[in-house]
Amino acid sequence: MKKIIIFTTCLLSLLISTYTRAEMSGPSELSGKSRQCIDCHKQETPAIVQQWGSSKHFRGNVGCFECHQAKKEDADVFTHYGSKIATIVSPKDCARCHEKEASEFKSSHHSIAGRILGSLDNRLAEVVEGNRMMITPGFPDGNSAAAVNGCWQCHGSEVKVLQDGSLDPATWPNTGIGRINPDGSEGSCSACHSRHKFSVEQARNPETCGKCHMGPDHPQIEIYQESKHGIAFYANKDKMNLGNEKWILGEDYDAAPTCATCHMSATPDQDVTHDVGLRISWNNRPVMSVRPEVSDAKLGLPGKDISWETRRENMQNVCTNCHNQTYVDNFYTQYDSLIELYNGKFAKPGKELMALAKPLLKPVTFSNKIDFIWFEIWHHEGRTARHGASMMGPDYTHWHGTYEVAKHFYAEFIPALEEIVEKNLRSSDSKKVMQTKKLAAKIKAVLESNDHKWYINKMDPKEATKRKEAQEKFKERYKK
Amino acid sequence: MKKIIIFTTCLLSLLISTYTRAEMSGPSELSGKSRQCIDCHKQETPAIVQQWGSSKHFRGNVGCFECHQAKKEDADVFTHYGSKIATIVSPKDCARCHEKEASEFKSSHHSIAGRILGSLDNRLAEVVEGNRMMITPGFPDGNSAAAVNGCWQCHGSEVKVLQDGSLDPATWPNTGIGRINPDGSEGSCSACHSRHKFSVEQARNPETCGKCHMGPDHPQIEIYQESKHGIAFYANKDKMNLGNEKWILGEDYDAAPTCATCHMSATPDQDVTHDVGLRISWNNRPVMSVRPEVSDAKLGLPGKDISWETRRENMQNVCTNCHNQTYVDNFYTQYDSLIELYNGKFAKPGKELMALAKPLLKPVTFSNKIDFIWFEIWHHEGRTARHGASMMGPDYTHWHGTYEVAKHFYAEFIPALEEIVEKNLRSSDSKKVMQTKKLAAKIKAVLESNDHKWYINKMDPKEATKRKEAQEKFKERYKK
Amino acid sequence: MKKIIIFTTCLLSLLISTYTRAEMSGPSELSGKSRQCIDCHKQETPAIVQQWGSSKHFRGNVGCFECHQAKKEDADVFTHYGSKIATIVSPKDCARCHEKEASEFKSSHHSIAGRILGSLDNRLAEVVEGNRMMITPGFPDGNSAAAVNGCWQCHGSEVKVLQDGSLDPATWPNTGIGRINPDGSEGSCSACHSRHKFSVEQARNPETCGKCHMGPDHPQIEIYQESKHGIAFYANKDKMNLGNEKWILGEDYDAAPTCATCHMSATPDQDVTHDVGLRISWNNRPVMSVRPEVSDAKLGLPGKDISWETRRENMQNVCTNCHNQTYVDNFYTQYDSLIELYNGKFAKPGKELMALAKPLLKPVTFSNKIDFIWFEIWHHEGRTARHGASMMGPDYTHWHGTYEVAKHFYAEFIPALEEIVEKNLRSSDSKKVMQTKKLAAKIKAVLESNDHKWYINKMDPKEATKRKEAQEKFKERYKK
Repeated sequence: MKKIIIFTTCLLSLLISTYTRAEMSGPSELSGKSRQCIDCHKQETPAIVQQWGSSKHFRGNVGCFECHQAKKEDADVFTHYGSKIATIVSPKDCARCHEKEASEFKSSHHSIAGRILGSLDNRLAEVVEGNRMMITPGFPDGNSAAAVNGCWQCHGSEVKVLQDGSLDPATWPNTGIGRINPDGSEGSCSACHSRHKFSVEQARNPETCGKCHMGPDHPQIEIYQESKHGIAFYANKDKMNLGNEKWILGEDYDAAPTCATCHMSATPDQDVTHDVGLRISWNNRPVMSVRPEVSDAKLGLPGKDISWETRRENMQNVCTNCHNQTYVDNFYTQYDSLIELYNGKFAKPGKELMALAKPLLKPVTFSNKIDFIWFEIWHHEGRTARHGASMMGPDYTHWHGTYEVAKHFYAEFIPALEEIVEKNLRSSDSKKVMQTKKLAAKIKAVLESNDHKWYINKMDPKEATKRKEAQEKFKERYKK
Repeated sequence: MKKIIIFTTCLLSLLISTYTRAEMSGPSELSGKSRQCIDCHKQETPAIVQQWGSSKHFRGNVGCFECHQAKKEDADVFTHYGSKIATIVSPKDCARCHEKEASEFKSSHHSIAGRILGSLDNRLAEVVEGNRMMITPGFPDGNSAAAVNGCWQCHGSEVKVLQDGSLDPATWPNTGIGRINPDGSEGSCSACHSRHKFSVEQARNPETCGKCHMGPDHPQIEIYQESKHGIAFYANKDKMNLGNEKWILGEDYDAAPTCATCHMSATPDQDVTHDVGLRISWNNRPVMSVRPEVSDAKLGLPGKDISWETRRENMQNVCTNCHNQTYVDNFYTQYDSLIELYNGKFAKPGKELMALAKPLLKPVTFSNKIDFIWFEIWHHEGRTARHGASMMGPDYTHWHGTYEVAKHFYAEFIPALEEIVEKNLRSSDSKKVMQTKKLAAKIKAVLESNDHKWYINKMDPKEATKRKEAQEKFKERYKK
Repeated sequence: MKKIIIFTTCLLSLLISTYTRAEMSGPSELSGKSRQCIDCHKQETPAIVQQWGSSKHFRGNVGCFECHQAKKEDADVFTHYGSKIATIVSPKDCARCHEKEASEFKSSHHSIAGRILGSLDNRLAEVVEGNRMMITPGFPDGNSAAAVNGCWQCHGSEVKVLQDGSLDPATWPNTGIGRINPDGSEGSCSACHSRHKFSVEQARNPETCGKCHMGPDHPQIEIYQESKHGIAFYANKDKMNLGNEKWILGEDYDAAPTCATCHMSATPDQDVTHDVGLRISWNNRPVMSVRPEVSDAKLGLPGKDISWETRRENMQNVCTNCHNQTYVDNFYTQYDSLIELYNGKFAKPGKELMALAKPLLKPVTFSNKIDFIWFEIWHHEGRTARHGASMMGPDYTHWHGTYEVAKHFYAEFIPALEEIVEKNLRSSDSKKVMQTKKLAAKIKAVLESNDHKWYINKMDPKEATKRKEAQEKFKERYKK
């Protein structure tokens, strides 16, 4: 009896969902091919059969074969007990049912994360940290194990199919979000919707984003966990209704926002989007923060036509479900001011100083200590400060952020530059001496600028007096 | 029918709670003013209306207007659809119903966190990391964005009301716990009881405290998460009964203690308190740990008359719900010994050495690398070690704590001092040479003391023999 | 009536469990001795009585006395209201019922964690960070508070019984997993099964392991939390069935693996084990990773006869519940390649360089800055990289791992060695000059080797061309 009720309920819900979202419904019953897969995999890999069994795919009769099927011309096709299948289910495959999501994803930075693997960070993993000793069938010249186990696991590998149809171990397993797949598509839906449940619930959990958005160079998950948003989430996780199909802020939940809420999910006026950049008004990745349309243009993404103002409006449309417009405007004043402080006081002069020092250094990047010092100032600590302010994590903004930036700027970077000047001024190479003088002049100019002259004990007397008064005032208050 | 039951239940519980805690009951029905607010805000900011709807305030008919109402003489009053209201609900406002809590809070260090903004840390954020380029209507001379986005978000801003009654964006949004409000009161109840649910449940979650008590200079939340107390909490969160009105350890829950349990909440013999210092027997904030009554006296807090022994008894009254008295006494022996080790071996000689070195440094603090080295030894690592021992997080005590203290003391601090000596001994300024000799003598005295003579290879022979024997004994055991 | 039903249910389940696992059943009713304990401790330490009340021990009539009873010849016996008891319940005591678990535990590295206390790390805590100023009744010569509050809390203390039968405060409280108990047994079951619930549920939570497996030198919990395994756990904790007696992957749960799943718990083909090393195929503790049977042999553990291949098969038997064999094999190719990269490029040459530098340094270890530099390269960052790869945490592998290793190798370690060479070449001691020349030759050989020659701008031209091409290709793709 109970079984019949469950069955009827399933059927009903299937009918209803078919009715309401016809484009998303699956086949009317599970295919014979998929049944065949399950018969065997129930024994071979029982846990993933169970995971699939608790997925929406199960309820929609979307089985193993529906996703893993391949055409004979596919690069990675192989025959498995009589069926032509492929291991990798690419965004192109998912798009057979989830076309809107795949298409939005394709416009995002996420989708092209695999392309940046010729960057500075990559040089680190391949040359500085690595070597070519990871020889695999597909890579007789080898790869760097630091890149394979590090970079590629977030950014995505370029998956290589071997002659026997199997996947090269340097490039698979891999769920990097910008994975370059054998079918030419870019991306990995399972980066966020983990196999084999593919649940939207999991993707709405902040930890999902934390797989990659963590650590010294972009500690977003740590910042979220410090912020009042994260605090509210962890205190109210059971009230978040995370598994609900419709998940509209203020309708279906209100206790807290997750990463998904602000960057992707629906509000009463705004649809879900899988293009994660559409609500972001600063790109804090580079040495100096830029507007997102600028970096989108450089990358050839359609976002080049979407101004930061529009994106900020999109985000504010999320914020205003809980905060009034003045509050939100004021927050952005605070956030923008931190970006401007970092850009103006540290990033711009630092970049210029590094450019002037470059001809005086050993030619190979990262063979000079100052290469690491400067790299961490902008790539680690400078980003942390900016991300910290963007998501309201005060300790990340300050102690892990601007404090570290300033400490390394004054106690490491400037002294290292001064040492370079001292050493090269005595050079017999007149070109070097000329370059050294340019660098020395720039150091002087920077240190005498308003932002830095405190360091050489030349604080503006008016400012010094004001500071002293403020300090006295505070001290007095302290004693009351 | 169901609705009626719910309604009756609500009514009954209201009556009961009115009966038992008359002073805490709200109005008999929601005010017209609040109904008016809700009519509009249901559309404008739906999520906070929902949050309020799940709060105890809802059940007590305490609506928007009851908290946000203002008098025409209030500094931040403004007229909003005919009602005189203020944005900020200060502790003075909350005290209209929660007088006991507000009064206890007023005696705590928390309440005066905003006053310390003339301190060394503040100099960092305002001058070293910052500048005055965050110009806002209320601050034509500008503020530092590093202070606004960093320090102020935990310590609290001094909220500035602009001529049009709005709040200056440098000082609002802000939920720093020591916020200085337009009505002159200090504090922000929403620092822990987040808007607009104000739930005691959330405040009992450790993450709430982690908003500020985290990071390199006071990693309390990280230490808690490492400790057996934290482990027990995360494994048993669903058994913690966190939302219960009465929350007495051993009666209403027993699975684990949270921050609130030990520092604030009720035991069978002890009331809840909002003065978080009443169970703390060391103040580990300064260079050298001091007793809390000493720092309370300095700050003019009533805690000046409450000895550390009394506070320790208060804490032990919590501990002994799960641990016997010997266990607790032994723990305190362990904790005290770590404080004494840090104070005696590193803090005291370090402070004295720094004082002797000061006249030989560039005059501006933080323009010398050694300023940062010493600052981190006590402010970051030394505190981490002490907090680690206080809450039983062994990795924080040792690897993030005493290991870092010792590493930086021997491998950075002492060599930096020796370099200063070497450089200044050759000075033509006889006063400097004299000072240098004093410093050199002190370095020598420190390194020849029992605590440090291992460093100059002068370990007491008896001790060296003992150590060797112990090592052999261990090695032998290692091999068995 | 309800009470009777509960009672009957309890009785039935007791009968059933007695029937199926006769060796694990407790007495038929709670002993009078235990009733006596409870009468008083309900008042004295109410929370632990409640904890015990929610334990399986309660249902099995295993009370206070059953575990704490002691014989008159026991070292730590004392008389407490007429009963002979001991404070510490050692693995020997637990083995009275849990013999299989205690015996497996005895074969593990965990059980002998207390024996390593003569190691390098211990020298740090006792001499470098510590002193002998923690004088307690049992240690008139003192102990180091850094060892007591740090190392010993994870590794375990050697518990000292005082003349009055009480436990010395330097050695108790202590739940270090390798605690050396008064009865001569090693270990502490409550390290993972916390008092007084001793729940298997808690022990299956990753945080339990995180008590010790965290921090700069072995951040396993942090890596797990970053990994897809951890993400799946935190998103699905409520579906993990963590409290179920039988907990077989793929039968009783499938949403995610915890630490216990992979290292200890049952699969359809494999029993639970309390010897945590039986599924581990690399020991990543030493400077260079070794096979576990090698370190087991050194420690005299029975694991010396269990090859890494067998252990890897054991682990793969877990993996294949969710992943197919190719996937698993490929993963191990990735993991092994990272170990080989670290071992070959950094650990081996670094170790050799340090050995050559040693005679040129101040004789006391850790009195030279380079001692700390090298120590952190292998002990902190090198381990982090290796553990990161083993558990698929890309940021820990790369940014916290190989990036830090390489940065400190090139920007700190090599320059420090070069400085030693420069200084000692001018020595008047010809033996020193000879040693210096050896060191200089080795530095040259390392830097000219394939792994390092990029640093001296001597990258193989073929390789340089390849890299340039790849970079161009990437840049092109970047622009499309």
